Amino acid sequence: MSITLLANGDFSAGKSAQASVTSRVASVYSEVQATRIDHELPLPSVLRKPFKIVNGPPSSAAGNPDEIAKLFPCLFGQPSAVLVPSDSEANQTNQKLKIGCVLSGGQAPGGHNVISGIFDYLQERAKGSILYGFRGGPAGIMKCKYVELTSDYIYPYRNQGGFDMICSGRDKIETPEQFKQAEETALKLDLDGLVVIGGDDSNTNACLLAENFRKKNIKTRVIGCPKTIDGDLKCKEVPTSFGFDTACKIYAEMIGNVMIDARSTGKYYHFVRLMGRAASHITLECALQTHPNITIIGEEVAAKKQTLKNVTDYIVNIILKRADLGYNYGVILIPEGLIDFIPEVQQLIAELNEILANDIVDEGGLWKKKLKDQSLQLFEFLPPAIQEQLLLERDPHGNVQVAKIETEKMLIQMVETELEKKKKEGPYLGEFKGQSHFFGYEGRCGLPTNFDSAYCYALGYAAGALLQNGYTGLISSVGNLAAPVEEWTVSGTALTSLMDVERRHGKFKPVIKKAMVELEGAPFKKFASLRNDWALYNRYISPGPIQFVGPASNAANHTLLLELGAQV
Amino acid sequence: MSITLLANGDFSAGKSAQASVTSRVASVYSEVQATRIDHELPLPSVLRKPFKIVNGPPSSAAGNPDEIAKLFPCLFGQPSAVLVPSDSEANQTNQKLKIGCVLSGGQAPGGHNVISGIFDYLQERAKGSILYGFRGGPAGIMKCKYVELTSDYIYPYRNQGGFDMICSGRDKIETPEQFKQAEETALKLDLDGLVVIGGDDSNTNACLLAENFRKKNIKTRVIGCPKTIDGDLKCKEVPTSFGFDTACKIYAEMIGNVMIDARSTGKYYHFVRLMGRAASHITLECALQTHPNITIIGEEVAAKKQTLKNVTDYIVNIILKRADLGYNYGVILIPEGLIDFIPEVQQLIAELNEILANDIVDEGGLWKKKLKDQSLQLFEFLPPAIQEQLLLERDPHGNVQVAKIETEKMLIQMVETELEKKKKEGPYLGEFKGQSHFFGYEGRCGLPTNFDSAYCYALGYAAGALLQNGYTGLISSVGNLAAPVEEWTVSGTALTSLMDVERRHGKFKPVIKKAMVELEGAPFKKFASLRNDWALYNRYISPGPIQFVGPASNAANHTLLLELGAQV
Repeated sequence: MSITLLANGDFSAGKSAQASVTSRVASVYSEVQATRIDHELPLPSVLRKPFKIVNGPPSSAAGNPDEIAKLFPCLFGQPSAVLVPSDSEANQTNQKLKIGCVLSGGQAPGGHNVISGIFDYLQERAKGSILYGFRGGPAGIMKCKYVELTSDYIYPYRNQGGFDMICSGRDKIETPEQFKQAEETALKLDLDGLVVIGGDDSNTNACLLAENFRKKNIKTRVIGCPKTIDGDLKCKEVPTSFGFDTACKIYAEMIGNVMIDARSTGKYYHFVRLMGRAASHITLECALQTHPNITIIGEEVAAKKQTLKNVTDYIVNIILKRADLGYNYGVILIPEGLIDFIPEVQQLIAELNEILANDIVDEGGLWKKKLKDQSLQLFEFLPPAIQEQLLLERDPHGNVQVAKIETEKMLIQMVETELEKKKKEGPYLGEFKGQSHFFGYEGRCGLPTNFDSAYCYALGYAAGALLQNGYTGLISSVGNLAAPVEEWTVSGTALTSLMDVERRHGKFKPVIKKAMVELEGAPFKKFASLRNDWALYNRYISPGPIQFVGPASNAANHTLLLELGAQV
Repeated sequence: MSITLLANGDFSAGKSAQASVTSRVASVYSEVQATRIDHELPLPSVLRKPFKIVNGPPSSAAGNPDEIAKLFPCLFGQPSAVLVPSDSEANQTNQKLKIGCVLSGGQAPGGHNVISGIFDYLQERAKGSILYGFRGGPAGIMKCKYVELTSDYIYPYRNQGGFDMICSGRDKIETPEQFKQAEETALKLDLDGLVVIGGDDSNTNACLLAENFRKKNIKTRVIGCPKTIDGDLKCKEVPTSFGFDTACKIYAEMIGNVMIDARSTGKYYHFVRLMGRAASHITLECALQTHPNITIIGEEVAAKKQTLKNVTDYIVNIILKRADLGYNYGVILIPEGLIDFIPEVQQLIAELNEILANDIVDEGGLWKKKLKDQSLQLFEFLPPAIQEQLLLERDPHGNVQVAKIETEKMLIQMVETELEKKKKEGPYLGEFKGQSHFFGYEGRCGLPTNFDSAYCYALGYAAGALLQNGYTGLISSVGNLAAPVEEWTVSGTALTSLMDVERRHGKFKPVIKKAMVELEGAPFKKFASLRNDWALYNRYISPGPIQFVGPASNAANHTLLLELGAQV
């Protein structure tokens, strides 16, 4: 039974209304989608009652505070702003606000709830305010492409996945002309505030905007919200980025299913590549949820300066040991960005780019003499299909397309080759059949879990509170996440305090460094203490599909809980 | 929080017990898995109370009844056996039974529940009976490899996905020697009955076994159960095969997520290949659940004698029309077996096999002169990567490996090439980026839906009842599936009545013909009436993750409901 959602928010079973301005109004909803729309969201208790905002001590920067201070003369050193219960609403003005919001970068489940949170805050605490949604990401700010977000407009997107309410984009506001365009939009719409919902780059950008508005005496304040399924935007005050919880649970559902398939069939090694080019948090979290036989963590490969051969050998050794135990099957998790962590691969690709740009790649292979020894050795070690891909597929700049390499298929071929050698040598009698998987797009737009739904709503609600109270250049920060929602803490953290600088083209650029998997952190240590057992014995866990009601519906992910010191 | 399930069925939080004889005992369970174990299963009311079994009129065959009669002299013409309420348990003996069961072929969610159903029937209605599980499929029968299934043994598998309780296999009992082995096992274990849980081939095999035992005056009776995620084992009396419901809902969850991703990003065409080599039921069901822009149904392609170029043009035309509407994105569903439905592809492959076996494939391409015109034309139309795959990858018999062709990637390349032509011709200004997906293994071993859980349990329970009452050569048949479980009907249907013959090696072989998508059936007709609307407008539905509690947890799939005449 499907349910049609009409523009006014009424449901009408079985009928499909005409296509309308927004993509969801008049779409047909599944029962699960429909029941989620009216799911009541809990709020941290501090947001449910009158609160006041208390400033902490001045902040510094994650690194190079002097340079950050120079880059952000108006904002550097801002204290964090903590919401605490208050007897009166004294410090909350009744001023009507004009606020804009924008979704930036790749989708993450929960983005719509951040917007609902901002909207509901304004409705409840600053009646008569207006919320604009910039369309298609930061480009929408620059081109002043926006839509006024009303109650009816937002309604169909409540607790729904995707970013399609206002869509997203990957443009950046970088050049002086682009900053000028943003100013014009802020002035044209008379914006009191702007909420930037995005990852590390977008939040850096948000802070640059905030600094620029402050410098130019434009009243528009800017608050960031931490978004990315990759889980690599986090710090003490911002314990996780939204979307990570849902995406990992979707991938873990699939991995758990594949594990049971592996065990039932007894004849495949499933190589599962998981989305996330930079950090391996998704892979680590999925491992903690499902207990695969082998998990490769990019940060460990980099720290140990492992080669592709080392990684292959590690896999092959476990396969050999499992064959001795009678197991010719298993599940192996691989982070999408694996080869970016391997220095020798980077070196080979740099040399290939050079050769491809300047030389002729002859059939006979004379061109290979231009490769350094180590690179030649690696190239010869690669499966022929990958060699070919490296030579043939180029991006518009003529460079090798590393992102197109299907790491899981490459590893299958390399493992296969090594195992054939072992077979000839004698000790290995098992059968190896690799089966490749890539879990990526299916996780970015799922219905947000109860955790992400509530977390995002609180992030948005807090952003509204911070803007109303005159703050700028902060990132909305919701903490104490291992406790029930009522006990979550709410604050704003100076974006400059998350920053360091990187030198690019001879200039210092501010960056929020990606939070990588910490080899000394609790999640990795737990994984490392268990992986040998998981490798040989089958400790598979199948998390099953995300549940929205019942006892299994409210647990947060392992990474977050372990980092918060909770027992999992 | 994970939960450890100990051998005695007790839960102990957080501790992991030692590995044990069976794979699941002492495994660690997720919360969802754990809550499912104790999920109370409803039974059709006729199975909850005393019943008697009433025979219908004599049956015939699906085709060539004279030949089927010759092949099954003992069993042909058996009536169906219908369970109806009775005032007394008079006709139920208190005889203790020895029953074997076996899982045959690919995994399908719910297999464990069929076994639980048989077990519980025996516990409740034939106390003191013994249930054996043959390990690793039919080979377990032939080698007499079995395990006695006790209450403790079965407990951890209740309502769980996978076939790992006793595992499965693809061997067939075919030769006289193999039948002899099966007889020996039946006699050795003193089996009163055997339940064969499998697809069309396995159920045909079950009937041959039943016939053989009857002919030899061996007391072992044989009952089949309809299993396959492909949904292609069904008839009037057996409205669906188990596993189809769960697998389709898992795939539909992923497709729905990808749709929202497509709409949010606005720049990808997602080509989703779905498991199922023979019939396109899975693809059709997923289309009905999610409303993709384009769906290719193999049976329609075959009926219309379409070429690969026709299919490509169909896709390209919709992409062009969508570009005019401003949509440069979309979702396209493709059945895994698509190319098997295209006669010209079959012809090309036959010619290639011939050439590859007898001739040299020269670099210059002279070998191509041996292809017939139509085949050469098709070969030249194929993307180079596919051409190469056809020439290089062979199975152990030297044949082209059709199954290895990634149809979705092939179509992306063909569509890309056609669109580039259109771009040069002028009218097309859009951008096309294809993104490929294959959803297969993740659907075979998911936690069974409430529907599959209950359906399988009833199938198993009914198989027990039929065996206890002396029936053989029937397939367990549970009907009226659009009604609440209490009102489901329970019977056994003569397996011979599902059969036709095929001529193989000059002999008639009995087969249960695969139920293909009927172009005049209600599911296809509903799809066909809506697809033009779905093609141009975005009517995406995101079914979300399977729910086990709440209003969205009990609906059966569209195909089944539409075939039963219910409104969906």
